[in-house]
Amino acid sequence: MSQFEEKTIQSETIFKGKVIHVQVDTVELPNGNTSTRELVKHAGAVAVMAITEANRMVLVRQYRKPLEKTILEIPAGKLEPGEEPDHCARREMEEETGYHAASLKQVRAFYTSPGFADEILYLYEGTGLTRGKANPDEDEFVERVELTLDEAFAAMDAGEICDAKTVAALYLWKNKVLEGR
Amino acid sequence: MSQFEEKTIQSETIFKGKVIHVQVDTVELPNGNTSTRELVKHAGAVAVMAITEANRMVLVRQYRKPLEKTILEIPAGKLEPGEEPDHCARREMEEETGYHAASLKQVRAFYTSPGFADEILYLYEGTGLTRGKANPDEDEFVERVELTLDEAFAAMDAGEICDAKTVAALYLWKNKVLEGR
Repeated sequence: MSQFEEKTIQSETIFKGKVIHVQVDTVELPNGNTSTRELVKHAGAVAVMAITEANRMVLVRQYRKPLEKTILEIPAGKLEPGEEPDHCARREMEEETGYHAASLKQVRAFYTSPGFADEILYLYEGTGLTRGKANPDEDEFVERVELTLDEAFAAMDAGEICDAKTVAALYLWKNKVLEGR
Repeated sequence: MSQFEEKTIQSETIFKGKVIHVQVDTVELPNGNTSTRELVKHAGAVAVMAITEANRMVLVRQYRKPLEKTILEIPAGKLEPGEEPDHCARREMEEETGYHAASLKQVRAFYTSPGFADEILYLYEGTGLTRGKANPDEDEFVERVELTLDEAFAAMDAGEICDAKTVAALYLWKNKVLEGR
């Protein structure tokens, strides 16, 4: 696909934070023009779609500062440096919800905002759930919520479920139900 | 949901670019501790899921600098200042693919990366497609691609379709097919 490629001429680091790094690259476009690209670098994240034996999706309610509101999402979290996605999925699931999954299988990986960020999200499916005690980080405030498919779609229609990974997971769950899996 | 809220104590602007603004907020957590939040501000975007009369999804292939690769996505674009999402959906669809949709209906809106960004994406469904000529921005290089449901899922399995909005749109399309809509 080299006909579309943008060649980096210069790269300027703007910010190195705990969660994101920001840089501005000057690029040469396929037509020879130059332009700039504002880029957010992120370590990547995992999320877990898990359905209980009672056919309820395990979600967490938490405050999201960028949105200035509390929303409902599937359990998720950032990769620690050097951490494998499999390990992160198990860790976040147990910390945030108290659930242990006998099996955790990666079902999909996708970029959340390919226009400006390189964040990749590994979506897992957790099955064979057993309940323990949630153990969130000291500075993490989450509440576990379990919803049926209809309840989850109602929460999506109402706007409390409103993030890309959870919307994708709900559609995937419905596919599985419709296909009788 | 005030028990989860994070109160802003201080806000520092790091960067004001063309596409994103970056700021670091110092917040008071529900337990009284303080922490920082790295925040990316974005004007929002639209994407259009459109299926042709031949039952093919309209996609575009384009280079994404943050990923350093060319990927296949549904047509999408950023909101211009003050632009309504409806207008933006029609504009991006026509510019990038040459297709005019008789009807464009918003089916969902979701945040792409709620952990660090406020970008919201308005997902539209376009129906009643008629073909004109694509008219991308001078510095935009896109190629229109049309895929059946099976071909699109194969492209997702192969990793060429690999962004959240397009993955969500594919699962939604499959739901509609399974439901006979």
